[in-house]
Amino acid sequence: MSASDLEANLDLDATDINPDVDLKIKNIDLSVVLESRAPLRWGICATGLIAHDFVASLVGHEHQHEVVAVASRSLDRARKFADEFKIDTAYGSYEELAKDPKIDIVYVASINTQHRKHCLLFIEHKKHVLCEKPMALTVRDAQEILRSAKQHDVFFMEGMWTAFFPACEKIREIITSGQLGDVRALLANFGQNISHVERISKKDLGGGGLYDLGGYLVYWAIMVFGRAPVSSYTHGFLNTDGVDETYTTTMLYLGGAIATLTCSTKANYQNDVTIVGTKGRIRIPNNLWHPSSFEWINDEEESTFFEFTYPLSDQSYQFGKEWSAMFYEAEAARQAIARGMKEHPLMSWKSSQLMARLLEDARRDLRVKWNDEDLP
Amino acid sequence: MSASDLEANLDLDATDINPDVDLKIKNIDLSVVLESRAPLRWGICATGLIAHDFVASLVGHEHQHEVVAVASRSLDRARKFADEFKIDTAYGSYEELAKDPKIDIVYVASINTQHRKHCLLFIEHKKHVLCEKPMALTVRDAQEILRSAKQHDVFFMEGMWTAFFPACEKIREIITSGQLGDVRALLANFGQNISHVERISKKDLGGGGLYDLGGYLVYWAIMVFGRAPVSSYTHGFLNTDGVDETYTTTMLYLGGAIATLTCSTKANYQNDVTIVGTKGRIRIPNNLWHPSSFEWINDEEESTFFEFTYPLSDQSYQFGKEWSAMFYEAEAARQAIARGMKEHPLMSWKSSQLMARLLEDARRDLRVKWNDEDLP
Repeated sequence: MSASDLEANLDLDATDINPDVDLKIKNIDLSVVLESRAPLRWGICATGLIAHDFVASLVGHEHQHEVVAVASRSLDRARKFADEFKIDTAYGSYEELAKDPKIDIVYVASINTQHRKHCLLFIEHKKHVLCEKPMALTVRDAQEILRSAKQHDVFFMEGMWTAFFPACEKIREIITSGQLGDVRALLANFGQNISHVERISKKDLGGGGLYDLGGYLVYWAIMVFGRAPVSSYTHGFLNTDGVDETYTTTMLYLGGAIATLTCSTKANYQNDVTIVGTKGRIRIPNNLWHPSSFEWINDEEESTFFEFTYPLSDQSYQFGKEWSAMFYEAEAARQAIARGMKEHPLMSWKSSQLMARLLEDARRDLRVKWNDEDLP
Repeated sequence: MSASDLEANLDLDATDINPDVDLKIKNIDLSVVLESRAPLRWGICATGLIAHDFVASLVGHEHQHEVVAVASRSLDRARKFADEFKIDTAYGSYEELAKDPKIDIVYVASINTQHRKHCLLFIEHKKHVLCEKPMALTVRDAQEILRSAKQHDVFFMEGMWTAFFPACEKIREIITSGQLGDVRALLANFGQNISHVERISKKDLGGGGLYDLGGYLVYWAIMVFGRAPVSSYTHGFLNTDGVDETYTTTMLYLGGAIATLTCSTKANYQNDVTIVGTKGRIRIPNNLWHPSSFEWINDEEESTFFEFTYPLSDQSYQFGKEWSAMFYEAEAARQAIARGMKEHPLMSWKSSQLMARLLEDARRDLRVKWNDEDLP
């Protein structure tokens, strides 16, 4: 199959997600016992804070998930990580991890600028991949990874954990059931005072708010509208290193709906989401990236509150106890793989392509260029 | 004094409001008994719903405010209005109202497209004027009115009642005291499902959300930042008559702060405001155009709630009991006039010019033109 055939099959230029398919599917049903006889066997690529919390979220689910090996550029770091979680194998290179026949799927948790290289490495070794978001810093890299996943016939998913929270499942239910009426507006705000963190401030490290906080905002737009906007504009400020610090993206959708996404790495916002429909609105009051509650307000301004719990866990977490909810995305990946799927409908390849394109559009408006060849 | 002198004195091109002057002045101190020996004597221009609620808000304040006369194009309507409120004089023309020597100040409550004509009429008869917002639908009209007010040495104020609420006074205090730190972002959302109302949908009637809901949003930006943005962009949809229906304005300010204003006449938003500073944030949870409560959230995410009451009133109101708070702006006008001032610092002539300019900038981005000569 030629590259251009693959490209056609991937619908790389198609931007519509089908809401009838993508939004109506329940994300995970933990009560279903799948037929796969063995747990999903994980390899862990990199040993940073998020890898720690991901593995912690799997502990206690031995029947479904087994962490088989962990790799780092430093064997010492890998060993230390393996010891903490009683993982059998530690590797001092990612190539060794890629070659390990005991591994079904690799969780890629390296720094954003390394995602392309690591995803391609594992995919080419026929491993399934769950890659921390953002899967890539450019549309071109995202498409290259997806083409490779298609070519090697492996499961690939961008790790947008937000998609798999029970709160989001209930919200999608309210939207798709018609209870909300036609969606007229999405207002999503995410600001955290993190501009001093090197990973955020430095262009060399893929910095800026866009590919960190901004991805969550764009995911909400994809989840709510299930398609690409007809028009998008981003207005904001860059820092002295040339990456974004504060911005607002406005996206217009067919039918007269609007999404307004505000982002800042300079101040702590409320981190809330409002989805406004013709019959009422949904308010996620905070924590839009790991929502545990929301309010449904009908046209008579009557409120109903919904509250959800995170998965119980006796582990300690680097980013906070709510990160036990990373289990949801791992379990979603397992269930999709057990069914023979190559992508998960709630974070499909099309969704990832759309995410990459919307972030790149914003980057173009803001004039954030990774290098001289980028965004000619 | 020539027209160009007047223009220079008005600082028509100056866009900076001085926050040290404009924001630090307390809006009204109802405990102060001013030296003026007689109540402020009002004439009412037009007899619509908002004129009704304005006059209702003055009832019970005879020592400070007296409604002397009301005028309409229809003498019948004026008489009916006068009867309801026991007003002595009813006129069937605005010229008669303008010539009535018993009147100190006219409240202009006609339809937006008539504001220019009516303001000029009363100003030229040396009446003070409180004009419902928006004072004009173009920068040119706003400047013409202000020039005339200066030339005739009368008090003029655009009726932005929001400015004078106790909640806003307390919010300004938190901002100017430094408690909030540097302001980094303003997020203000105002949407009401009113696109079926003719006044909103028809271009001939000065329709659209911008000059109705949008003025409040811009006022919040003026109140919080006290200056013009360095850059502004508006993105949105028009209706089939060519006026705006849904839009978002993003404004960038010196120092890296951002304002995001979202507006819709097609859906009921939360109508909330968040002001984010380096030391915490202020959340007005709803009713941004007549705020009665807000939340102060410090950097440790600890909340303090503030609640305020509207003025007590035994009147009935067309738009709801909170409209008794129109008394605040009337009283602010009285106190300014009693002190010999020609403008009120909380809704100064510069503020009105800035408001007109920001709305016109948005209109230009959205390509809303009142006629072929508008916005060449």
